[in-house]
Amino acid sequence: MSYDLWYWPGIQGRGEFVRLVLEGAGIPYRDRAREDGAEALVRDLAAREGFKPFAPPYIVDGAFATAQVAHILAWLTDRHALGSGDLATDLQLIQLQLTVTDLVAEVHDVHHPVGADKYYHEQKNEALRAAASFCNARLPKYLGHFEGALGVTEGPFVLGAKWSPIDTSLFQLVEGLTYAFPQRMAALKPDYPRLHAVRDAVARIDRIAAYLASDRRIAFNEDGIFRHYPELDAA
Amino acid sequence: MSYDLWYWPGIQGRGEFVRLVLEGAGIPYRDRAREDGAEALVRDLAAREGFKPFAPPYIVDGAFATAQVAHILAWLTDRHALGSGDLATDLQLIQLQLTVTDLVAEVHDVHHPVGADKYYHEQKNEALRAAASFCNARLPKYLGHFEGALGVTEGPFVLGAKWSPIDTSLFQLVEGLTYAFPQRMAALKPDYPRLHAVRDAVARIDRIAAYLASDRRIAFNEDGIFRHYPELDAA
Repeated sequence: MSYDLWYWPGIQGRGEFVRLVLEGAGIPYRDRAREDGAEALVRDLAAREGFKPFAPPYIVDGAFATAQVAHILAWLTDRHALGSGDLATDLQLIQLQLTVTDLVAEVHDVHHPVGADKYYHEQKNEALRAAASFCNARLPKYLGHFEGALGVTEGPFVLGAKWSPIDTSLFQLVEGLTYAFPQRMAALKPDYPRLHAVRDAVARIDRIAAYLASDRRIAFNEDGIFRHYPELDAA
Repeated sequence: MSYDLWYWPGIQGRGEFVRLVLEGAGIPYRDRAREDGAEALVRDLAAREGFKPFAPPYIVDGAFATAQVAHILAWLTDRHALGSGDLATDLQLIQLQLTVTDLVAEVHDVHHPVGADKYYHEQKNEALRAAASFCNARLPKYLGHFEGALGVTEGPFVLGAKWSPIDTSLFQLVEGLTYAFPQRMAALKPDYPRLHAVRDAVARIDRIAAYLASDRRIAFNEDGIFRHYPELDAA
């Protein structure tokens, strides 16, 4: 069995949260648009019928296709026993993952506060104001929330000794935020030791380490969600 | 059995998507912050331990509390048999609900493109540009997606003759968007007949009709998600 993952080639973006889980758990998949190109993705999405994805990433298993990162990860968690095995706890992991989704959307909107239909340089003035609000008000609030969730167990992972998809997602958040806002994240780092510890622990998972060293891991760049525009960063 | 729903009193906001399902399905609940005030909500949230909600709305059932509208609705769907009974279909309803969540966040960001930590009048210039992008590019894309989903069955509801939480959510979207952008929604109305038909069908559900006529239904206002600022609307 192998899944098809469809996401824009050339960026980590939202697809990376799915890739990290597939890679970390050793679940076979094909990264279809990286094999066949963005046009193939556009064609595949347009040809789908019934309840179709609104946007990539989406995952396909035979006749079943579904989108939304947190939803895909909950589905994979259920099928591949990636969670705690306790329903109430697994529900809380979904809640946490949806909060990751919210933060990712806010990170995107920092460089696109006016709209995704316009280039960054067309909304740079608005982005300067949005970045200040995000880095000062929202970012510490989110990081503090995840730091608190990581304190429910002894760590290093949210569930303790076993990693689950929320951990690879927190890894990706720390990596992406540090790429986008290096000064701000460096200034905040002492306040969030568990978040940096889970980042380090995820990077040491054998399959994740192999993935990060491979050419399957796309480098961060200024077409993705996490973009480094120096003018938007400040300690 | 009765749930506690915690959400900001005085606005429909994200809480309304939960209220409509509780009301429509006749599920007993207490709207705690409307009884006890916003300070009680702040205290309750701060006192929670373990995997706590990042923000309201959240629902409480004894020792279990969880947040995120789409997650709350999936949980209620499971517990109260509000879905199709078919796993693959119910997963698609969750996917659709998460797309509602995305649209709701974008609607909020139209009047707060710089950040939620600043008042509208402090970001009105940015909001004027964001509103044009939203109304021209994003709104038709979302409405078209939901119109397509409503075409999977004969209607009027997404699943056909039986309503489910996605339908009350689509009702709320049409109501809220029409309140916020009356000119734009009037211009678009002929293109989305199924979306307006589901809005009408939901309004005719006995318990929903009784709820909408009651003082439990808060009026739309300019503290909520859907705000009518005439300068942001155009046909």
